Amino acid sequence: MSTVAFIGLGNMGGPMAANLLKAGMTVRVFDLVPEAMKSLADQGAFVSSTACGAAAGASVVITMLPAGKHVKNLYLGNGSDKGLLDVVAGDTLLIDCSTIDAQSAQLVAAEAAKSGIEFMDAPVSGGTAGAAAGSLTFICGGSEAAFERAQPVLKAMGMNIFHAGGAGAGQVAKICNNMLLSVLMVGTSEALQMGVDHGLDPKVLSDIMKVSSGGNWTLEKYNPCPGVMETVPSSKGYEGGFMVDLMVKDLGLSQEAALLSNSSTPMGALARSLYVNHARQGNGRRDFSSIFEQFAPLKK
Amino acid sequence: MSTVAFIGLGNMGGPMAANLLKAGMTVRVFDLVPEAMKSLADQGAFVSSTACGAAAGASVVITMLPAGKHVKNLYLGNGSDKGLLDVVAGDTLLIDCSTIDAQSAQLVAAEAAKSGIEFMDAPVSGGTAGAAAGSLTFICGGSEAAFERAQPVLKAMGMNIFHAGGAGAGQVAKICNNMLLSVLMVGTSEALQMGVDHGLDPKVLSDIMKVSSGGNWTLEKYNPCPGVMETVPSSKGYEGGFMVDLMVKDLGLSQEAALLSNSSTPMGALARSLYVNHARQGNGRRDFSSIFEQFAPLKK
Amino acid sequence: MSTVAFIGLGNMGGPMAANLLKAGMTVRVFDLVPEAMKSLADQGAFVSSTACGAAAGASVVITMLPAGKHVKNLYLGNGSDKGLLDVVAGDTLLIDCSTIDAQSAQLVAAEAAKSGIEFMDAPVSGGTAGAAAGSLTFICGGSEAAFERAQPVLKAMGMNIFHAGGAGAGQVAKICNNMLLSVLMVGTSEALQMGVDHGLDPKVLSDIMKVSSGGNWTLEKYNPCPGVMETVPSSKGYEGGFMVDLMVKDLGLSQEAALLSNSSTPMGALARSLYVNHARQGNGRRDFSSIFEQFAPLKK
Amino acid sequence: MSTVAFIGLGNMGGPMAANLLKAGMTVRVFDLVPEAMKSLADQGAFVSSTACGAAAGASVVITMLPAGKHVKNLYLGNGSDKGLLDVVAGDTLLIDCSTIDAQSAQLVAAEAAKSGIEFMDAPVSGGTAGAAAGSLTFICGGSEAAFERAQPVLKAMGMNIFHAGGAGAGQVAKICNNMLLSVLMVGTSEALQMGVDHGLDPKVLSDIMKVSSGGNWTLEKYNPCPGVMETVPSSKGYEGGFMVDLMVKDLGLSQEAALLSNSSTPMGALARSLYVNHARQGNGRRDFSSIFEQFAPLKK
Repeated sequence: MSTVAFIGLGNMGGPMAANLLKAGMTVRVFDLVPEAMKSLADQGAFVSSTACGAAAGASVVITMLPAGKHVKNLYLGNGSDKGLLDVVAGDTLLIDCSTIDAQSAQLVAAEAAKSGIEFMDAPVSGGTAGAAAGSLTFICGGSEAAFERAQPVLKAMGMNIFHAGGAGAGQVAKICNNMLLSVLMVGTSEALQMGVDHGLDPKVLSDIMKVSSGGNWTLEKYNPCPGVMETVPSSKGYEGGFMVDLMVKDLGLSQEAALLSNSSTPMGALARSLYVNHARQGNGRRDFSSIFEQFAPLKK
Repeated sequence: MSTVAFIGLGNMGGPMAANLLKAGMTVRVFDLVPEAMKSLADQGAFVSSTACGAAAGASVVITMLPAGKHVKNLYLGNGSDKGLLDVVAGDTLLIDCSTIDAQSAQLVAAEAAKSGIEFMDAPVSGGTAGAAAGSLTFICGGSEAAFERAQPVLKAMGMNIFHAGGAGAGQVAKICNNMLLSVLMVGTSEALQMGVDHGLDPKVLSDIMKVSSGGNWTLEKYNPCPGVMETVPSSKGYEGGFMVDLMVKDLGLSQEAALLSNSSTPMGALARSLYVNHARQGNGRRDFSSIFEQFAPLKK
Repeated sequence: MSTVAFIGLGNMGGPMAANLLKAGMTVRVFDLVPEAMKSLADQGAFVSSTACGAAAGASVVITMLPAGKHVKNLYLGNGSDKGLLDVVAGDTLLIDCSTIDAQSAQLVAAEAAKSGIEFMDAPVSGGTAGAAAGSLTFICGGSEAAFERAQPVLKAMGMNIFHAGGAGAGQVAKICNNMLLSVLMVGTSEALQMGVDHGLDPKVLSDIMKVSSGGNWTLEKYNPCPGVMETVPSSKGYEGGFMVDLMVKDLGLSQEAALLSNSSTPMGALARSLYVNHARQGNGRRDFSSIFEQFAPLKK
Repeated sequence: MSTVAFIGLGNMGGPMAANLLKAGMTVRVFDLVPEAMKSLADQGAFVSSTACGAAAGASVVITMLPAGKHVKNLYLGNGSDKGLLDVVAGDTLLIDCSTIDAQSAQLVAAEAAKSGIEFMDAPVSGGTAGAAAGSLTFICGGSEAAFERAQPVLKAMGMNIFHAGGAGAGQVAKICNNMLLSVLMVGTSEALQMGVDHGLDPKVLSDIMKVSSGGNWTLEKYNPCPGVMETVPSSKGYEGGFMVDLMVKDLGLSQEAALLSNSSTPMGALARSLYVNHARQGNGRRDFSSIFEQFAPLKK
């Protein structure tokens, strides 16, 4: 069986690589943090001392990094440091699962194409819980062939695997989705609080809107009003879940995208402003559904 | 079998009354427009020459009117004109299906209660198609007893029947839902157009977001981008459906409600501004999903 | 010399009435709070035991009350309680200086006109400092004749006296102005903070924008960034000045007005949402320039 | 007398260079469009066949270009093409008057500093009229020494010359100002139209707000409501002035800046969305005060 290289073993990457091992694949890993590699080694992964070392000779390379500049540096090299493109074979499939700007993804894809190498952007949603459970959603940008070749590894880590279009399309679709998610979250929060302000029970109102034309993912899976759903962050002091700081990052990417295409996104732009204010007030590490507290009167 | 009085036989009220007749009920109707009554008479309704005449002696009275002032005038009377409360028996059940401000509904309910009469606000969603098909959603505000008594008549006209709370709660829940709907529609429109601006296929992007965390009613049932769904208004030149002018009316009610409770609704307020501008540009009688055109570049 | 009745001796009304006394006018006062009257009596005012008692026989009646309902009750009476319109002579000039909705002002004006009495709405700006200094701005709605007759009394209390139009126009102009003021304050705050975030000195940036196309009243007189201007609330912990709760009230009136005329005010609506959130977080009694803190990072 | 090189002779640069000639300076010019150079030659300028040729040996170099990429390419070179930094002497003063992102300005300044050359960003405001009249405003970023050295040439082209701070500060201040300007324009438009919707005369309302707390540059100099001021674009079919497309460009720069510093600018972001929609509806080449039409009912 062929070898998969996995670079970037953080909160998401670690459990994703572990799922490849569980599926019986041979996995070579690299991370700047030795402890992160140690944990994977204990589960059967081969540890490499450099990213290029992990990637050289692998048939599939998967990367999971914080931002576009890291992805560009890793694949393209930086000054005298070699990049992955300098060391992988021509028939290697490169899959970047980071959430980054589409431009960076397109740049790396174009550079890879010059050497005849397939590069696919495949950002994920589903959070750390989905990474651990192997139930992530992958939104892919790249050729049809690359998308087909990626199926076995992606299926070992996720459930829904979408093909959004050519290079960068995975990033664009992810960022459109997350921008819309922020709008759903803010819009649902203000509607629920207005109902509460008029004496309605937020659970009753949620049940009604959920099956009416106000129905949306946040009412279904992630109600922001404390006490309505038992197991979501809003009922646990807004701990865990998807951090405000990460939503601010994604909304930043969405507004970068809007600037590039000269698009108008009044709702997404407003959501970004509200989330930035929320983060600046000290809520950056709480769950993003805590935006609900911007609308509720201060607890005495 | 007992008699139902139905007052207000417009685009919604007409087919609703017809469904009561189909269910075998005895129905007395009144409308200011004789032709509207004629059509119901042909289907078996008894025609009254006044609203009070229709209501006197009925066990259930249903009203479907344009705005709060009409509801108040009809039930409470106006100067020397008697109101329905002056003529109905103490055990009559009054059901107002109009979409109006909660204050007016609460006022009429309080006046009815002085005479020991049950009044329930029960605004509907589902549009003229739902009215014809008998598949409306009713969102009710009133006592538990009134809600129970209303079941047979409401079930003859609708499918989902919710009890939102006490007097006025039906109106509040309806307006919270429709405010949220407008946010979903605008947010989905801008996200789809941004994807299109970056070269994505709106159908592919819709399919991805529909089952992801951006999922919402508009992606499921009412996609605003032309060509994505075959049978919705966006694919028919934004004709039919739910008019922009009606969304502007409902968003006005939502902002009245927000002022009363001193609530903050930044998304709903922004949606209202965008819809008012859209209406002022001549789109008032088109479907509300035509807000998509505010984001798309002008067709040459 | 003729007699002026002054009803409503709060933070604004008290010093306004005192300025009439200083101008040598004969003043009869009434307030629900005896202490408020005591202070004016010490300055030479005649105290009345009822509002109607103060108004009867006066040639000019001035009122300064919290909201539209108080104004309507006072002028029109309430149930068995007589209103001012029942007791004043036909040639009395009625001037209401309260900031209320234009509809209420127009209603009272219309009722007064039935008895041939002139009523003028004349809301003020300038705050308690302006009231004490006699430097208020009056924005008047009413006939040209009423506007002329009002000059002597208004000049005793203020400096700029505008005639905005017919009945209610004073209220509309005041509320348009204050809505715009809130937009200037929020827009200036976010621009200044963005400059600071990029390392600019807020004083230097303020000086530049003040004389450029970003110039506006807040940069000129009321800079929201602490330390830029010495004597304004932002440099005194946002104490004093014009309270957030009062701006929320005025923005509520502006949105009521926008609903009535079906106007679109995206900036004003957004400002209201931001101010309501700010108030709900416990800032209601601080100066309205404290909205600046919504944009600044939390002080550690 | 020393020589000034002027590169970029468009609608702004052309008249600016002409003012240097009028002040008696020796000017060498370059532009990609030969006709643009011809006009300056007729006024006494020396024409160069390349930008580097114009700059070499000049004591001051002034550039006026469309965007950051042009500025970077011109100063830093591009591939085998030499940049200005490669040809100018160490004591040359470089002044870029383009409106670009602060990052690009800082990058060029840093590269220039490596060779001990002073570079200053000095974006202008005042439009083509100000350029012709020599009454531009310059907002400068750079060292104190550079700012002093630049005085003679800047005074030949403008009236107000500000020092905003170090490298890039001129661009930041300019973009903060223009973001605020867009907010003033939209906020003033909606306030005026709401007044008109309530029957007020826009001229009267403008006069009142101008000297009240709603006072701002647009009411003073650039009223957006047709017919209020005689000589501004709103009274000439919104022709001339500052194009919507240019405001969209500046608002794009402001949002890029907000993303970089993680700032929240809800008003500026909303203004950008409204201006982008306005441009997409075909108004890109009209004056930016035409945003007023978004609020006014469609003329029949």
